[in-house]
Order: sequence, then structure tokens, then C-alpha cells
Amino acid sequence: MSKRYLNTVRKEDALLKVLDAITPLTAEEEIPAVAAIGRITSRQVLARVSNPPFTCSAMDGYAVDFEKTLSADLYKPVALTKDRDVIRVNTGDPVPSTANAVIMIEDVEDKGQTILIRKPASLWQHVRMIGEDIIEGDALFPTGYRIRVMDVGLLIGAGMREVYVRKKPKLLIVPTGHELVDIVTEPIESLKRGQLIDFNSYTLKALAEELGFEASKTAIAKNKDNLRAILDRSCQEYDVILINAGSSAGTEDFTEGVISDLGTVLFHGVAMMPGKPTLFGLVKGKPVFGIPGYPVSTVIAFKTFVEPAYEKLTCVAVPKRSIACVTPYKLPSAIGVEEVVRVSLIEKHGLFYAYPLARGASLFTSMAQADALIRIPQNVEGYLEGEQVICELLREKRELQGRLHILGSHDFSLDVMRDIIKKSNPEMDLLSTHIGSLSGIIALQKGVVDLCTTHILDEKEKVYNIPVVKKYLGTRPALLINVAKRIQGLVVTKGNPKGVKGVSDLARSDIRFINRQAGSGTRILLDTMLAEQGISRDSVRGYDREEFTHAAVGVLVKNGIADVGLAIHPIARLFGLDFIPLIEEEYDLLVTREFSEDKRFSVLMDAIKSAEFARRLQELGGYKTDQTGKTKYVNG
Amino acid sequence: MSKRYLNTVRKEDALLKVLDAITPLTAEEEIPAVAAIGRITSRQVLARVSNPPFTCSAMDGYAVDFEKTLSADLYKPVALTKDRDVIRVNTGDPVPSTANAVIMIEDVEDKGQTILIRKPASLWQHVRMIGEDIIEGDALFPTGYRIRVMDVGLLIGAGMREVYVRKKPKLLIVPTGHELVDIVTEPIESLKRGQLIDFNSYTLKALAEELGFEASKTAIAKNKDNLRAILDRSCQEYDVILINAGSSAGTEDFTEGVISDLGTVLFHGVAMMPGKPTLFGLVKGKPVFGIPGYPVSTVIAFKTFVEPAYEKLTCVAVPKRSIACVTPYKLPSAIGVEEVVRVSLIEKHGLFYAYPLARGASLFTSMAQADALIRIPQNVEGYLEGEQVICELLREKRELQGRLHILGSHDFSLDVMRDIIKKSNPEMDLLSTHIGSLSGIIALQKGVVDLCTTHILDEKEKVYNIPVVKKYLGTRPALLINVAKRIQGLVVTKGNPKGVKGVSDLARSDIRFINRQAGSGTRILLDTMLAEQGISRDSVRGYDREEFTHAAVGVLVKNGIADVGLAIHPIARLFGLDFIPLIEEEYDLLVTREFSEDKRFSVLMDAIKSAEFARRLQELGGYKTDQTGKTKYVNG
Repeated sequence: MSKRYLNTVRKEDALLKVLDAITPLTAEEEIPAVAAIGRITSRQVLARVSNPPFTCSAMDGYAVDFEKTLSADLYKPVALTKDRDVIRVNTGDPVPSTANAVIMIEDVEDKGQTILIRKPASLWQHVRMIGEDIIEGDALFPTGYRIRVMDVGLLIGAGMREVYVRKKPKLLIVPTGHELVDIVTEPIESLKRGQLIDFNSYTLKALAEELGFEASKTAIAKNKDNLRAILDRSCQEYDVILINAGSSAGTEDFTEGVISDLGTVLFHGVAMMPGKPTLFGLVKGKPVFGIPGYPVSTVIAFKTFVEPAYEKLTCVAVPKRSIACVTPYKLPSAIGVEEVVRVSLIEKHGLFYAYPLARGASLFTSMAQADALIRIPQNVEGYLEGEQVICELLREKRELQGRLHILGSHDFSLDVMRDIIKKSNPEMDLLSTHIGSLSGIIALQKGVVDLCTTHILDEKEKVYNIPVVKKYLGTRPALLINVAKRIQGLVVTKGNPKGVKGVSDLARSDIRFINRQAGSGTRILLDTMLAEQGISRDSVRGYDREEFTHAAVGVLVKNGIADVGLAIHPIARLFGLDFIPLIEEEYDLLVTREFSEDKRFSVLMDAIKSAEFARRLQELGGYKTDQTGKTKYVNG
Repeated sequence: MSKRYLNTVRKEDALLKVLDAITPLTAEEEIPAVAAIGRITSRQVLARVSNPPFTCSAMDGYAVDFEKTLSADLYKPVALTKDRDVIRVNTGDPVPSTANAVIMIEDVEDKGQTILIRKPASLWQHVRMIGEDIIEGDALFPTGYRIRVMDVGLLIGAGMREVYVRKKPKLLIVPTGHELVDIVTEPIESLKRGQLIDFNSYTLKALAEELGFEASKTAIAKNKDNLRAILDRSCQEYDVILINAGSSAGTEDFTEGVISDLGTVLFHGVAMMPGKPTLFGLVKGKPVFGIPGYPVSTVIAFKTFVEPAYEKLTCVAVPKRSIACVTPYKLPSAIGVEEVVRVSLIEKHGLFYAYPLARGASLFTSMAQADALIRIPQNVEGYLEGEQVICELLREKRELQGRLHILGSHDFSLDVMRDIIKKSNPEMDLLSTHIGSLSGIIALQKGVVDLCTTHILDEKEKVYNIPVVKKYLGTRPALLINVAKRIQGLVVTKGNPKGVKGVSDLARSDIRFINRQAGSGTRILLDTMLAEQGISRDSVRGYDREEFTHAAVGVLVKNGIADVGLAIHPIARLFGLDFIPLIEEEYDLLVTREFSEDKRFSVLMDAIKSAEFARRLQELGGYKTDQTGKTKYVNG
């Protein structure tokens, strides 16, 4: 833990400090009704005019005094003279004060100057009374009401072109850091080595606007004076200021200093993970947050502190979506900090299973991918397998349904499947979580997922997947279906400067290898090949450095962090590397028999068997699709 | 039924015709990532750059070759020379290629030119590998993906300032009718008698934009030539055209004629209520809808036909929210038409009870107020009491929870309560449905609501509410609480031109009375007073004309539709009428004992007992609040 915030405060205490420091806003503004959707009324809204504004006809026909019609019957029609006894009216036309009923056009016989009717009219028939829908002075909405789409017509129908609403609070985002580049305002080509794209500001802006702030961002503050000047001149205009980041312990972390100079720091450091370096203070009475710079911490700090600040400022409750979920395996957490865990939710038999995603604060992809957040309180050491936990949903619940979720081994074909499925089935989606072949099979065996992908070579039988499925699944009924055959090989820097020829070269002391994680099919393949050639694992420099995807291996070799990795063929093409093919392997999909009868599974199979799937795998390179979609083994 | 659409088609057939006539759009556009929230990707989105784009430090500290640190221990520190052995780095700074680990600043002793460390570093510790979060070429989103708030940061972080999305389909709204006035573009003061405010166009525009259309509206087409010219020139540019209305049977209903002239009418008239006069055709290949003019029909026609048309055009599923509800009493429906019933949903013990709102197609307030729609199919004669029915939600489910719902008698104090509650409890709301005192008590007795308001005078005992509660509630435990005392009296035109002095005048032949609905406290009061004075109901002209609220009575008297009505005092003030006071009555709130212990009920009681409530009732006039909030009777 950083020396700078040994005095971290409990999240709950930090939140109280924030809420205490904020005074609700009372400002209102009059805006056009057509622009008021989602806005909150600042006064009780009373109808200005009645609707209909006069007594009018509800039908196309003739307005009449009903007493003139009383003697009409089928055989003795009554003749009424146009423009004297009756007045032609269309729906919505005023009913003259001499009339108190309307006869439908379908019920009259037109005789030129007169009409004949064969049925008496009743008092007020087919007449819409003034104010039947809206009465002048009616209370349409109370104070504090959020105006919906349907309310716009109601406002205009009640004569209100404008409506009084609460002013949106104004929020300013100040990005800091000399290393940041704003690629929205500057060309991405100007990005130099050592510079980072500022995307946190845009995440914060989008989050703040979604919440209801009027949000803007400044140019990137490159140094302390710059930040001080911005803060000094902005406090008057804005209701909340977010400084991102500079609240950590680096030589350039001057947020605390600037706030101390201009105002007061109320806390710096929260017993929360991610989001620990969060800072909060007051400058000229205005709340200023130091939001941590790791992108996941940025989001968590915003949700933890800025959301409640918005609620306090506006007296508006932000809708919270929470849902009960079940932990499919143990979810450990350190005591002494509130940990916020990103999870994927997989629905099965009406329960939502929460799969933890990568926990690193720097991994924004796992934040964007997350379906929900689980907050493990400071005094809780995590959750056991099968515990029920309440989580905060980040998507609509309906988005979670109708989804396919594949756990297991990573391959580019998964992205192609997803693209094909979503294109023609917009309400569906395919999610894949890369935990390696073996972990996927074990999860399926435990009954927590229905789909996994695998490419595990059996060392003895020299057969892919079938032996491992037999070994781990027991009697659980399942189908093993081929996705594609693909080539695994060594990826090396373009031109192969170190002259790598095969697995035996991995033992060379001048070769830095990059490995895959234990349990992955690629790792099992490596171990099998090392054993065959009698190479000790210890002699492979970098054997301990594990990555979770083929692409991660590719990017490290491309950037000279490693010399060699074991990966599938498309990686070489994607990253411009040389490829030394070693083995053709079978990448298969395992599905429970039960799920193989689900409608969603047939959508997946349609995608796998499509001509587009085969064509796109050809384009990626190194795939064979002659067995694609074929069931190769039935278990149980 | 109008002669013009004796050939109504079944809704299902009409929908098929619409879907058959529409070709999905394929156009895409490249837009800034920051403006892409809610838009649908038109291509698979691949990351353009890796994040981090280079291997960088995960901590503030010193970059080092870990092998130089291996001999360090607590008692034999290793000294490393700055800028030679170690390089100072902040979080995010590149790690030089000579280094493969970072030592945290907290773990070093700074000696000026050198640093001391007492613990060896491990390979790659505190180093973020290039592409750890996003790898260049990673598939971020598939085709057809809806971009969320959180995805904006991901796009920018992956180097994508712009993103390809599907073009929004363009929809044009053409209001028609010489009687319509657009109060958004013209001053409301220009509204003359006989003219109506066009609010349907704005409802349609808001609905279309919410769905995802780029929607615009033309000026009001005042005649047939005008409409033809607009349609003729707009077909090229727009993907969908809505004409509102002119599809009925009036002399000005020329929508069908114009579409026939320029193209083909595919159907006119749907066996659906509301929404029967819906019309659909093709003009130069473009779908043109004739949307009925009654505002509820407008919405139902849009939801029934234009929403599916949008889905077909864009290949995007519009999220449907449906929920199971229970009919608290019989819900009849005519065979031969699909009836769409607006309902309020009241949650009780986890079930949602669906209370039908007013069915008239002209009553837009009941559309805006509705929580959900129940579609009763063409071949179903309605639902029995207690049936479970699936309805389409018009609000978020969470909005339905935390609501108070009062059934029963209408009074202005309900609007005041709602305003006070919502102002300080934004997540709550108070809904009141005006079905009259007696119906409210019966609903409470049946156990379907927990709150009702009543002001029923017992003819014999001359006591308000207690006798009727005893009579109907039996042993059901409930509390009767006073809201206020209020004055009922006769409302007459300003200056009382007909010299009305009391109830006896209602028998005069020159007096037109306007009555309240059976079961309302006011009606019971009238009947009691008529009986006391020996006046026959038949002798009261207008006795049969019933209205459901005090305000409706006021507006009819103000506008000369009736001479006299019986209403509460504030009505006279609101509509500038004269008032002849007759009786002080007690307006009470009845609550089940069970609900009287609910947290929401205490919020309601806080509002009723507040100083603001008493003050605002004084301002409305004719209220006494000395007993307000007092429990006057406990039942059961």
C-alpha cells in the first residue's frame, strides 16, 4: 500500500463525507416541452387549456337537437333540413350550442336539402364534452416527476409549449498527465511511443451524461500550474469537478497539492479495490473528486461516489438495478477493503451464475464486458461456492437472457461465430470467456455451463479431445462437435533472426519464450512436445510467464518482449510474424445434451455450418473446415 | 362501423402486409465514437491499437533488470545507481527495453545518487505488458451490436475515434387537418374556437425518436393538394411516412385518396380497437401509414405497426417488456376485434393487479397514465376475474414498486399529497384512480387495494363514512383517517343568472343540471338531499348525464353546457363560478391495518400531516384541516 494513503478511510465513511459536503441544487429553467424527455419537473404542472377545448363531435355526421329526432322510427323516418335542423360536422368540429347530439353519417339517408333518419338520437350521443380528456387546471404531474416520451403529447395537448424543470447540474472533467493524448481532438498518428490515449475522460463524460449531468471536459492539464489555473477558474461555474487522475503516489501526482492549495482535502485513499486512490475535497465550496487513473478504478470511483453525489445534488433517485446471483465457485476477497468484482452472469434454470472476470484495475475490457458488479464488503472474506449474492446489474436483465456463453479455449473462430449470430439474430449474443480448455470441461461437468471449447491432445492415444471428455465428464450426456482444424506452431519475429527451427530451440539460453496458462490446450501441447523431445521445463527461459490468449503471445513477440511463442496460425498473419508449423489440431465444441435441444443452440449451429463461417476462417488462414459442424463423439 | 372500412382486416394479416412491404436497410455511416451511444454497429469492430500501446510501469517506482536485484535481502541491501541500473518511472511510463521489472517507490531507500533495496524483484513484477487490456486486431464488437455508455471508452482506448454504424431510418410525420394548430411554432393565443392543438405529431415524433428513427415533421397539411404535394416530394428522402390523420370517413378524410393516386393502398381498416381506421400503402415503394387521429389510436397504431416496421427496416429487435398480471375483476371484450386495454398495475404480495383505465380512444390522459397494455385477441371474449394475463409494460418494472395507489373518490387534496410526497421522495409516487367512494371501499374490502378515499353521508345517522365502512368492510381490519373537511355546494355561472338558491331549484324546467356518477359520494349526497326535499329524480333535467370528477362538472357549467352542478368549493374558484354552499362533509382515507404498517404509508401520513398540506388546502379554498391526519375510526 502506498505511503501516501496509509490513512485510507472506510468506503462508508468516505461516502458520508461526500454527501455531507454537498448542498442540493434548487435552480430551475423553463424549456420546450419537446426537449423535456427525461427531465425532472421543478413545479407541479397544471393544464393550461382543456382538451378538447370545446364541445365537439366524436364522429363524422350531423349535429342536432336530440328532441327533434324523438319521433323517428324505421318505418316513419324524420326529415331534417340541412343547415337549419342539422349541421354537417366532422370528427373534432365544434358542436353548435343549439345542438346536443350527433347522428353518424352512416345512419342518415342524404336527400340533398334534407336528411332522413330512422332512429331517434339520445342526449349527448357522439358528442365529446369540453375537457373530457384534460381539464384546465388539472394537475398533470407533481414536482419531481421525470417526463416520459408519452408525456410530451400530454403537455402540448394541455397547451404547454414550455415546462419548468430542474436545471441539470454541471460537471467538469479535467484530464491530467503530460503523457496523455486526446485522439478525439488530435490525430491518432500524433501518438508517440510513451504517450497514452486518454479514454477515461470520455468514459466519465458518457457516464455523467447518462446520469443527467451537463458534462464537459477541458483540454489535458499537462502540469500542476495548468491544473491549478483550471480549477481556480472553474469552481464558480461547475457544480462538480472531476480530476483524472494524478491522485496516486507518482512524481506527477499533484491533485492533492492543488486542492490543498485552493481548498480542503476531505479524504485521500479509500479502503476499496479498485478505486483506492480516490480523493475528495472542497474548493470554494464546490466538490472536487480526484478520480483514479486506472480505467476500471475510474468507473468504480464514479459509481461509488459521483452517482450518490448526483442524487444528493438533484434530489433524484438514480434507478438501481440489482439482481440475485449465485457464485459458481469460491470468490475470495481480502479483509479490510471493499472489493468490487466484475462478473459475467450466465442464466441457467432461472438462476444467474456470476463468473468473475479479470480483477486488474487496468483491464478496461473486463469492465466493458461485465454484466454486473459484486461488492464484497470490507469485513467479509469473500463468498463460498454456491452462495447467493446481490449484485448491481450493468445491463438490462433481458439482455442476459437469450445469450450463449462459451467457457474454455480461445480461438478467433469464436469472434466470427458471434458476428454471424448477431448479424441475423439481433436479440441474441455469444459471449466467450477464455479460461482454457480443461477449466471449461470441468465447468461443464459441474453443470454450471452448457458450452465449452477444447483442443486437448491425449499424450498416449494421440487423439484430440475425446479422451479428456471421457475422463472428466463421466456419464454426463454431451456432444462433441468439430469447429475447425487449425495449425499450431511457433511464432517468431519476422525474418526469424534467431533461426528458430522447432521446439528443441526453446532450450537455448538466447531464446526468450512466452508461455500460455496451465490448463490451456496450447500449454498441454507444449508440455507434451517438450516431454517427447526430453527437454526440461526449467531449461525454457520464460516458461513461467503465462498469457491467456494466442493474441497476447503474438503481441509480445511482435514487440520484442519475447522471441518465441506457441500459437495458432492466424496470429502470425495478424501481427506480421514468421510461423513454424508444428501440428494440426482439432478445435471442438462440447455441448450438454440438454442444451443441444435449446433453440439458441440451433442458432449457434446454423452459424458454424454457414458458408460465411467457412469462408471467413479461410481468410484468417490456417484453418481446415472439412469436418466443421460434424458430431465426432457422443458422451453418456 | 364506418362504411369506408367494412373490409377491415385482422390485425395479424395487416401486420404481415406491412412486414412484406418493407425491405431492410443496409446503409451505414461513420460517426464519432463519442456520439455512438445507442447506435448499432454495421461492421465487426476490431481494435486499431493495443492498450497499453507499449510495455509500461504498473506502479510509481524504478524500472530495473530483475537479475540485478537477486542478492538483495533485509540485512544486505543492494545499491542501484539511478539512471544507470534503475530508471525512475511513474505509472504508465514506458519500461525501457533493458528493464523487466519495476520496484515500487515505497520499497526503496533513496540515497541521492543510488537507491537501496532489501528484497529481490521478480521477473515482470509491476509491469503492464503491451496489449494487456486490448490487443490490436481484437474483435471488440460484432456486427449488429448496440453501443453502450461503457463502450465509448473502449472504442477510444482502442484508437477508434470513429465507428461504422447503421444509418438511422428516416421517418416523416405529416399532420393533416384544417382545424389543427401547431402551438410549438405558432403562439397558443392564436388558437381560435373550433381549432384543435396538434399534439399527436409530437407524440409520434417522440415515439419514433425513442425507437431509433431520425424523425421530422412537416407543417400541417391543410388540404388534399397540400398533402399530395408533400407526399410526392418526400417519398424519395424518407424510409417511412406517417400521415396523421384523415383516414376516417369525414368529408376531409383524403389520406386514402392521395395514397391511391400516387401509389397503392394495401389495407384500410383493422379489426383492432383503438386504432381501427389505420391505413397502409406504398408510394414509390415507400411505406406510408395513415395513423388514426384519436390520440390513443395514434399511439396504439404506432406500437402495433410502426414498431415492427422499424425492426424489419433495421434488423434490430426493439426490447419488449412484458409482465404477468392478474385481472382483479372481469375484463369483457367484443369478439371480432383485438382490443387494446390500458391498465394501471398495482403490486400486492408480489402479484401485479391490472386495473383497466378509461377505454375511450380520445382519452389521452389514460394512455399517458397507463402502466401497461393488455391485448385481448380478436377471438377472445375478454378475461375472467382472477385470470393471469401477459401485458406489455410501458414503464420500468421498478417504477411500479414503491408506489402508493388510492382508489376511490376524487379530491384536489390528492394532487397536493402527490406533489408533497414526490418532492421529498423522488423514488415514490402516489397514483389515484377515481372510481367513486363506494367502489373504492368495495375494492378494499375485496383485498385488491389498500387505500381508498371516501365521503359518504349516511342518510339516517347523518354521519360521514363510518357507517358505510362498518357495513361493507365486515371484520377486515382497517383505519379511517380524516384528510380534510370540505364544503359541497352548487356551482353556477358567474353572477348566478338563473337565480339558483338551493337544491329545490334543480326541479325547474329551465335549469340544466350535470350529475356525478353512481356510487360517488357527491351523487349519494345529491340523492339524499333530493329525497329530503321530496324532489323526484325524473324532474331534474340532466340527472342522467354523469361525470366522474368535480372538475368535469365545473368545466361544463363554465362553458354553458349545464347551468348547475354539485361540486366542492375549489371548483368555483378554479373556474370562476359562483358557489352556493350546502353542506360540510368529511373526506377520509381508509387504509387496511396491514398497509398502515408499511413504510410507504408513513410517507403518505407525513405528507398529510405536513404544514405544507394544510397551507395548500387553505389556498385551494373551502377546506378545514383541524381534524386532518386524525384516526376517527378503527374497523375489525
